[in-house]
Amino acid sequence: MSGLSLERYLADRRVLVDAALERLLPAEDVPPPTVHRAMRYSVFAGGKRLRPILAIAGAEAVGSAADDVLPTACAIEMIHTYSLIHDDLPAMDDDDYRRGHPTNHKVFGEAMAILAGDALLTLAFQAIAENAAKVDPRVVADVLADVARAAGTLGMVGGQVVDIESEGKRVTAETLEYIHTHKTAALIRASLRAGAMLGGGHPGAVEAITAAGDALGLAFQIVDDILDVEGNLAELGKSAGSDERKKKVTYPAHHGLDASRREARRLVEHAIAALDSLGPPAEPIKALGRFVLERRS
Amino acid sequence: MSGLSLERYLADRRVLVDAALERLLPAEDVPPPTVHRAMRYSVFAGGKRLRPILAIAGAEAVGSAADDVLPTACAIEMIHTYSLIHDDLPAMDDDDYRRGHPTNHKVFGEAMAILAGDALLTLAFQAIAENAAKVDPRVVADVLADVARAAGTLGMVGGQVVDIESEGKRVTAETLEYIHTHKTAALIRASLRAGAMLGGGHPGAVEAITAAGDALGLAFQIVDDILDVEGNLAELGKSAGSDERKKKVTYPAHHGLDASRREARRLVEHAIAALDSLGPPAEPIKALGRFVLERRS
Repeated sequence: MSGLSLERYLADRRVLVDAALERLLPAEDVPPPTVHRAMRYSVFAGGKRLRPILAIAGAEAVGSAADDVLPTACAIEMIHTYSLIHDDLPAMDDDDYRRGHPTNHKVFGEAMAILAGDALLTLAFQAIAENAAKVDPRVVADVLADVARAAGTLGMVGGQVVDIESEGKRVTAETLEYIHTHKTAALIRASLRAGAMLGGGHPGAVEAITAAGDALGLAFQIVDDILDVEGNLAELGKSAGSDERKKKVTYPAHHGLDASRREARRLVEHAIAALDSLGPPAEPIKALGRFVLERRS
Repeated sequence: MSGLSLERYLADRRVLVDAALERLLPAEDVPPPTVHRAMRYSVFAGGKRLRPILAIAGAEAVGSAADDVLPTACAIEMIHTYSLIHDDLPAMDDDDYRRGHPTNHKVFGEAMAILAGDALLTLAFQAIAENAAKVDPRVVADVLADVARAAGTLGMVGGQVVDIESEGKRVTAETLEYIHTHKTAALIRASLRAGAMLGGGHPGAVEAITAAGDALGLAFQIVDDILDVEGNLAELGKSAGSDERKKKVTYPAHHGLDASRREARRLVEHAIAALDSLGPPAEPIKALGRFVLERRS
């Protein structure tokens, strides 16, 4: 897949995802309106939709279409968004800006930001479960449990706990990898898996896509860390170097920029190799991996 | 069911629920330990287990046993607990004590309290979904979506949003009823419904139990309000009159104590009548309704 056709692929899938999110989220005038405005503010704040597109790409890689996976793809985006809203809170990372916009609590206040996050997490599981009207309920239950494990204390929340507990401390390379694999990679991996499972992939295909998800998830976080070190406010939409200012542990801080770039490349190549058995339908996932290595924001 | 046998019933079911919660929650030494300690601190802080016992009673009322409903019953208790942890946060109700113990954020800090709440909500849905290994996955998906709707912005979170937005304001009787039916009654109703659905109840039975749940949910909240007005620190384990101090709207403040007591009694009688078609298996739900009218803490 060329750079140009990947761009088209991403734009097309993004339109699908945004339209589905529009349908799944209560309108702003549904009572109580404030919380629905707060939820929509962060969901439609210009995210790249990486996770839902990976879920769709996972379904396509096993020969399925986007339709059956869309509600679950959107649910994972809601989980990602809730985690950003809560991570930005004063009691957590205390960030005022996210993607160039004021963070949720700066606009709606802390109480509403906490509740909007809670509501997005709740609505996410509702959307996954309601999809059982169209897709085999046993697969839906398996996917839901899988996503919940990736989002919980043995996944994303666990990564955030260790990240917060590590602030201002020297941490080992082992702890750094724990934070990255849990805070980011777990949900990336769950996105691809959800797509492959809901798409009816056989166990071998789901396994290959899971292996790719593990490698891509870690690669994405390393690239995020590199961008934070290199970036600037205009490109990144949040204060560049903010991780360093808060003495957050990053991959480049631990291993240096060059080694970080090499490791991200090695991981993406590993993911691409894992997908070889699936042939051309897995091409978009591979292209997404290459794309991430080259992204500048 | 006499008062004595209800006491025995509650004690027996409580042992079942506590043992299942013990199995479902990660142990305190599972990494990252802090968040698991924080989750367990609030889950095992002496709650009455009203919601999970109602879920079990809902299953029993349609002729099923507790086993198939236990993980879901515990999940609802986790959702209830997460809502208490988040409601107590400084940005929300700012409470220092709950059931006579320091609130979660007073012990573990705000960041950990937010994350422990997030994790309990996530684990709740995981537990409901994992139950599909034993129970019909289609019913599991239906129950999960139902519980999520009861916990989200059209249910519990919506009630908390309006409650917070009403603080210090004069509100209409209509707004007060909105807060009560959404903040408390929705999850009470979902508990009974979940039990009836997972227990394989036919649609008429589920409908009767839902009607009872609506009435009992509102009755329980009115009694809570009455107790807050009448209570004292020793009996209630939190500062009595705290709702009034924060100018929270309560049923007695709006309608007076006598009318509030009458309304709670009327609702419980309505619930009992709704359950008549189910015969003796519904007796524990009826007894629970009567018990709530008489409770003093």
